[in-house]
Amino acid sequence: MMSPFVTAAVLLIGDELLSGRTKDQNAGWIADRLTELGIDLKEVRVVADDEPAIVEAVNALRARYDYVFSTGGIGPTHDDITADAIAKAFGVGIDYRPDVVAAMEKVFGDRLNEARLRMARIPDGASLLYAEGNVAPGFIIGNVHVMAGVPKIMQSMFSAVAPHLRAGPAVLSETILADAKEGDVGTPLGEVQKRNPDVSIGSYPFQDERGYNTNLVIRGRDPAAVAKAKAEVLAMLDEVHAALA
Amino acid sequence: MMSPFVTAAVLLIGDELLSGRTKDQNAGWIADRLTELGIDLKEVRVVADDEPAIVEAVNALRARYDYVFSTGGIGPTHDDITADAIAKAFGVGIDYRPDVVAAMEKVFGDRLNEARLRMARIPDGASLLYAEGNVAPGFIIGNVHVMAGVPKIMQSMFSAVAPHLRAGPAVLSETILADAKEGDVGTPLGEVQKRNPDVSIGSYPFQDERGYNTNLVIRGRDPAAVAKAKAEVLAMLDEVHAALA
Repeated sequence: MMSPFVTAAVLLIGDELLSGRTKDQNAGWIADRLTELGIDLKEVRVVADDEPAIVEAVNALRARYDYVFSTGGIGPTHDDITADAIAKAFGVGIDYRPDVVAAMEKVFGDRLNEARLRMARIPDGASLLYAEGNVAPGFIIGNVHVMAGVPKIMQSMFSAVAPHLRAGPAVLSETILADAKEGDVGTPLGEVQKRNPDVSIGSYPFQDERGYNTNLVIRGRDPAAVAKAKAEVLAMLDEVHAALA
Repeated sequence: MMSPFVTAAVLLIGDELLSGRTKDQNAGWIADRLTELGIDLKEVRVVADDEPAIVEAVNALRARYDYVFSTGGIGPTHDDITADAIAKAFGVGIDYRPDVVAAMEKVFGDRLNEARLRMARIPDGASLLYAEGNVAPGFIIGNVHVMAGVPKIMQSMFSAVAPHLRAGPAVLSETILADAKEGDVGTPLGEVQKRNPDVSIGSYPFQDERGYNTNLVIRGRDPAAVAKAKAEVLAMLDEVHAALA
């Protein structure tokens, strides 16, 4: 029987993320979309533009999760080595794909040079994944979705593939502002979590002008279980506030 | 002989990063600091508040890199399981640390409850890593630095440990705005890279009001090699601009 829970990993590829030069925005965006789809994002990895590192990460993640989404390294320059690394990870060949070359000839004409042609190199057996308005595609091979690193292009590619993903039961999320320090709610909150094993309760401290405060987040797929846990958290907070008053 | 190149990994721990609820700011901040220190950040992983996932990631990363920096999961609530997972990864015990308990008694007095005491549980053999103004510490065990997830607290912990890290030779970085599309510079840029193997040249496309443009980034530890590559990139751009004019 197929599990009702669908899992995914994100693999961000690029030296610029590891040097700090570029601050990633893609992982958080994909995380939001996967949550909306009821797909559980289980792991994110960031690796350099380095073939052995990409191959190892892709093979580790695709074996373990239902879907892998990679970003970065599919452009026209020498440091764009993702397509070759993915072909290697899958043990398949890679070559200029005639339909992509033909489409690029139309768009680029005289300006279709060796660099741009690199973007037509697609691993054997992959299907193409286009961003709106872009002639250079990403691709899908096995359960791995290989997307661009530029956020706008990546988002368009993800949106093209999203309707075809196996979605999971939606995750409901309730956020409650505790109006208390994390240390003051920790013990009773742990008891609420123990009594409500079908939800996961997270506790997220933050600081604002009034000092330390805490957001409590209840997540679960059963609306009744989430509602029950929420009621218990609210009752617990009343007791904590009364004790501290 | 000890390698002159020092490597590191970052491990971000927290369900909220994978659900998309919290957008990570820590990896990029640490990446910037490590680059300043001449330490090569090689990999980032994000895992859930899940003991087996944390144990596996910590053990994979600490075996492979000189330093590991983790963030998240050391607070006072039931979902803060990082300290226990790290103890398990190292195969050591974990208990309430008397000096931390004593310091917490002073600060919290009557409000030192079971939840806050959780933050005094430190793996055997670890040394403490304090953020300025915080009584609850992170810790260092082996080559693993276990820090808070709240950015301000994490940054203070990192800054406390930074002077004690083995720094590497500084990485110099030169950014050149290409004023050309990536596809127009890709082929000659690859040739510049081939002639300059001691630097790494990255190409980062972006879009602004004028359309697509590209930043070229030359990174290397030898000032003469970076200067030579920069001169060759500038000469290459002159040729590209002339050809496109």
